[in-house]
Amino acid sequence: MPDLNIGELNPPERLLMGPGPANVAPRVLQALSAPLLGHLDPAFIEIMDETVAELRQVFQTSNQFTIPISGTGSAGMEASLCNLLEPGDTIVIGVSGYFGGRMTEMVSRYGARSVLVEAEWGHTLDPEQFKAALEREKDVKIVALVHAETSTGVLQPVEEIAKLAHDHGALFLIDVVTSLGGIDVRVDEWGIDACFSGTQKCLGAPPGLAPLTLGPRAVEVLRSRKTPVANWYLDLTLLDKYWGEHKNQSRAYHHTAPISMVYSLREALRTIAEEGLEERFARHHRNASALRAGFETLGLQMLVPDAYRTDSLTTVLIPEGLDDLTIRRALLSEFSIEIGGGLGPLAGKVWRVGLMGYTSQPRNVFALLNALEQLLPAHGFEVPRGTAAAAAHVVLTA
Amino acid sequence: MPDLNIGELNPPERLLMGPGPANVAPRVLQALSAPLLGHLDPAFIEIMDETVAELRQVFQTSNQFTIPISGTGSAGMEASLCNLLEPGDTIVIGVSGYFGGRMTEMVSRYGARSVLVEAEWGHTLDPEQFKAALEREKDVKIVALVHAETSTGVLQPVEEIAKLAHDHGALFLIDVVTSLGGIDVRVDEWGIDACFSGTQKCLGAPPGLAPLTLGPRAVEVLRSRKTPVANWYLDLTLLDKYWGEHKNQSRAYHHTAPISMVYSLREALRTIAEEGLEERFARHHRNASALRAGFETLGLQMLVPDAYRTDSLTTVLIPEGLDDLTIRRALLSEFSIEIGGGLGPLAGKVWRVGLMGYTSQPRNVFALLNALEQLLPAHGFEVPRGTAAAAAHVVLTA
Repeated sequence: MPDLNIGELNPPERLLMGPGPANVAPRVLQALSAPLLGHLDPAFIEIMDETVAELRQVFQTSNQFTIPISGTGSAGMEASLCNLLEPGDTIVIGVSGYFGGRMTEMVSRYGARSVLVEAEWGHTLDPEQFKAALEREKDVKIVALVHAETSTGVLQPVEEIAKLAHDHGALFLIDVVTSLGGIDVRVDEWGIDACFSGTQKCLGAPPGLAPLTLGPRAVEVLRSRKTPVANWYLDLTLLDKYWGEHKNQSRAYHHTAPISMVYSLREALRTIAEEGLEERFARHHRNASALRAGFETLGLQMLVPDAYRTDSLTTVLIPEGLDDLTIRRALLSEFSIEIGGGLGPLAGKVWRVGLMGYTSQPRNVFALLNALEQLLPAHGFEVPRGTAAAAAHVVLTA
Repeated sequence: MPDLNIGELNPPERLLMGPGPANVAPRVLQALSAPLLGHLDPAFIEIMDETVAELRQVFQTSNQFTIPISGTGSAGMEASLCNLLEPGDTIVIGVSGYFGGRMTEMVSRYGARSVLVEAEWGHTLDPEQFKAALEREKDVKIVALVHAETSTGVLQPVEEIAKLAHDHGALFLIDVVTSLGGIDVRVDEWGIDACFSGTQKCLGAPPGLAPLTLGPRAVEVLRSRKTPVANWYLDLTLLDKYWGEHKNQSRAYHHTAPISMVYSLREALRTIAEEGLEERFARHHRNASALRAGFETLGLQMLVPDAYRTDSLTTVLIPEGLDDLTIRRALLSEFSIEIGGGLGPLAGKVWRVGLMGYTSQPRNVFALLNALEQLLPAHGFEVPRGTAAAAAHVVLTA
C-alpha cells in the first residue's frame, strides 16, 4: 500500500456566514466526541427519546411522529415527498427559488405530477395563485413550499396558504431548513402537516441529520398508501418503528443510527431550550437587522424588501464592477470568512450571508462589516470608512 | 416552553462487541470535534480528496468512482441497487441471512425482479446454484450477495461467483459492510463491479457514512440508464458531480456533506494506513481466533464451521437452558459489554460477537471471556474456571 502522506486533520477556523453549515458552539462539537453507544442500547434509546422531545418543542408541535432522518436536509425533503406521494398524485409546489425547484425535480422521479405556482426569485408567492391552482386542479394531495428560501432569503407567508390547502382537502408541507430554530415555525398552530429541516443551520449542530415531523393527517396518508415507497432507507413507516414510542416492546432495528450526530443534535437542542425560542428568534432578528444596517451604510442594497426577509439569511446585491468570486475568495483567504454566492439566475448577482444559530452573534456582524470595509475599496468599490460598524451598533443597542 | 430537564450528555462507556457500531479510537472521536468547514471550502475539498484516496486503498481499487454516501450502510446498499437497476431488470441475489433478504426487499421497490439463490442461514452459498440461475434466466443484470453476513458470521466465497457473473454478462455487486477494513476485500483483483460498506464496523469510525465504489462496467450501466432513479438523495450521477474529480472546475452542489463524519472517516482511514492492511487483517484473525478458543474452552459452540467464519463477527450458539436476553442484559448492566442477539430464525439461538476495528484487541477478548466465566454459572451453565483466558492467550502468543 503506497504511503499517501496524509497528515493530521487540521482544518482552518472559519467564520461560517454562508447559507450553511453555520458555526456550532464548542459544547456541541464536544458532544460529538462522547463515547459511542450501540443503537439499541437502553442508554441510547433514552438519548433518542430526549432528542425527539426537544425537537417537538422547537417544531412547536405535539406530533408523535417527529424524528431526525439519518441524512442531511435534502434527505428530509426526499423523505417527506416520497412517503406522502404515490404515482399519479398531484402536488402544487410554490417555486420562487432553487429549493422549490428541487422539490419538483424529486416529485417527477416518483411518478407524481407537479403543478407550479411561481414567483420571480426574490419575491413572495401569491396565495391567490395557490387558490386558483387548487380550484383548477382536481384532487390535489399536497401543497408544498419553502418557508425561508435559502437561495433568495425570502420568508414566505405560510398561514394563509396552509388554510387554503386544508380548505381543498390537501396536506400542507413546508421546507423549514433555513428557518427552524432561528425563525418562528409553529407547526401545530399554523396547520403544517409535514415539515423537515437540517441540523446545520439555525439549529446549531453540524450537518448530517434532517429533523422531520408529520401531523395526524400526514400520518393517515402515509399509513393508507397503496404502493410501497421506492425508497427503503427513507421509508417512514419503517423508521417510525425505530424512533417512535413503543412502550414495553423493543425497538425494531432498521438501520444503525448515526450515534455521534444524535449526540450533537441533542446538545444543540439543549442550548436552544436554555436560551428559549422567543429570545432566540429575537437574537436572530437583532443581529440580522444590525448586519443590514451595516450593509446599507456600506452602500450595498438588499435583494429582498424588508417585509419578506428571513433573519437567518440576507441576500445582498453585488455592486456593479465587483467580481463575485474574487471578493468571496479574498474574504476566505484574508479573513477566513465564508459567505455564499448566488444560485441559478442569481449566480454572480448576489451574496448570501447567513447569521444562523451560533453564528448569529454581534461580533460576527462586526467581523464581516469590517472585512468588507477593507476589501471592497481595494477592488474598486468605495465605501465610507468607520461607519458600518457604528450603524450596526446602533441597531444592536436600540 | 416547558423545561424538559434534559441533563448533560454523559453516555456510559461501553465495550461494543456486538455486530456494530464498534468502539472507535480516541483520535477518531476527537476528529469529530474539529472546527466545521463549509462543504465547498477548498480546505474541505482537499479533505474529501484525501478521504477518497484513502478509501481506494482500503477497497484495493483504482476505481475513480469511490465516495462515502451521506447515510449509514443501508443507504450504501440502497444507493448501489437503486442506481444500477431499472424497472423490469433481473437481479440474482444470494440469500443466506438477514441482509441478503434486505436486498430483495429493496429491489422489489424499484420494480426489478429478484431471483434468489438460497442457503440455510449460517451456511455458504453454492456457486453451482448461481451458475444454474444464470443459465436459466435471461439477461441477468446483476449478481449480488453479502460478503460477510452480519446476521450469521459467514464469509462467502466471492471470486468464483464474480467470474460466473461476468461470464454471463452480469455485474457483480457485494455488501462489504462487515468485512471492509478487517477482512481482505480486493475489489479490482476479484472483479467486484460495485460494493458498499459502513463506517461503524471494521473501518473504525462512527456510524453515518457508507463508502461505495463502482468499477467501469457499473459506471457504464449507471450512465446508460433509460429511466431516472426514483431517489434524488442517493442518485449517484448527481453525487459524482460533488465528490468526483473535476479538475479546473468547481464542484456541483448537491447536498451539504456531513462534514464532521468525513473528518472522522479520514482519521479512521489514516489509522488503517498506519497499521497496514495486511497487519490489520492479521490482527482481526488473531483476536477472533483467540476469542473462539476461549469460547470453546467455556463449552460454547460456534454456529459456523471454521472454514467459513468471518473474523469480524463470531456467532456462538446459546447453550440450552440459558435465556438470551437475560445474559445480554446482565453483560450490559454488570460489565458494560454489548454483544448482539440473533436475527430472524436465529433469534434467541445465537449471540453475535464482533471484534471489529478498534474493538479487535486482546484486552477485549479477555474482558468478554472473563465476564462470561462469571456470568454463565450464575445462570445455571457451568463452565471451567480460569481456563478460557489461558486458551485465548495461547492463540494470541502462538
